[in-house]
Amino acid sequence: MQLQRTTIHIAGQDYTIVSEEPADHVREVGFLVDSKIREIRDQSPHLDARQAAVLAAIQIASDHVKTKRNMGE
Amino acid sequence: MQLQRTTIHIAGQDYTIVSEEPADHVREVGFLVDSKIREIRDQSPHLDARQAAVLAAIQIASDHVKTKRNMGE
Repeated sequence: MQLQRTTIHIAGQDYTIVSEEPADHVREVGFLVDSKIREIRDQSPHLDARQAAVLAAIQIASDHVKTKRNMGE
Repeated sequence: MQLQRTTIHIAGQDYTIVSEEPADHVREVGFLVDSKIREIRDQSPHLDARQAAVLAAIQIASDHVKTKRNMGE
């Protein structure tokens, strides 16, 4: 198991991710999360950074649960 | 299309989600996000609420991207 460190930029802050996944995967994931937070803040500018991040996690988790449910059908 | 409002409790705050999805789905997703944030803060108590939420979004998005990639194989 080889761990890699990849730094990604999300909603104005840097996060260094230590993962077995290749850097390309971590960057793809970082882009997805950053885009989702940006979309939520564009739609609802009154949200603070924490609320926007929680709502991004909720939307991504909702897609994930639905995808896994459809696989099981 | 029938929109429903479901309130979920995540990391000490309430979020009212307006969604076409049934309340059970929204609650399942809320539980997943809340558990993930709790797990991250247990492991890294120095993180603030925003950072823990972003890292939860990253972990869930990573699982989602991997699941979708495996489906395409």
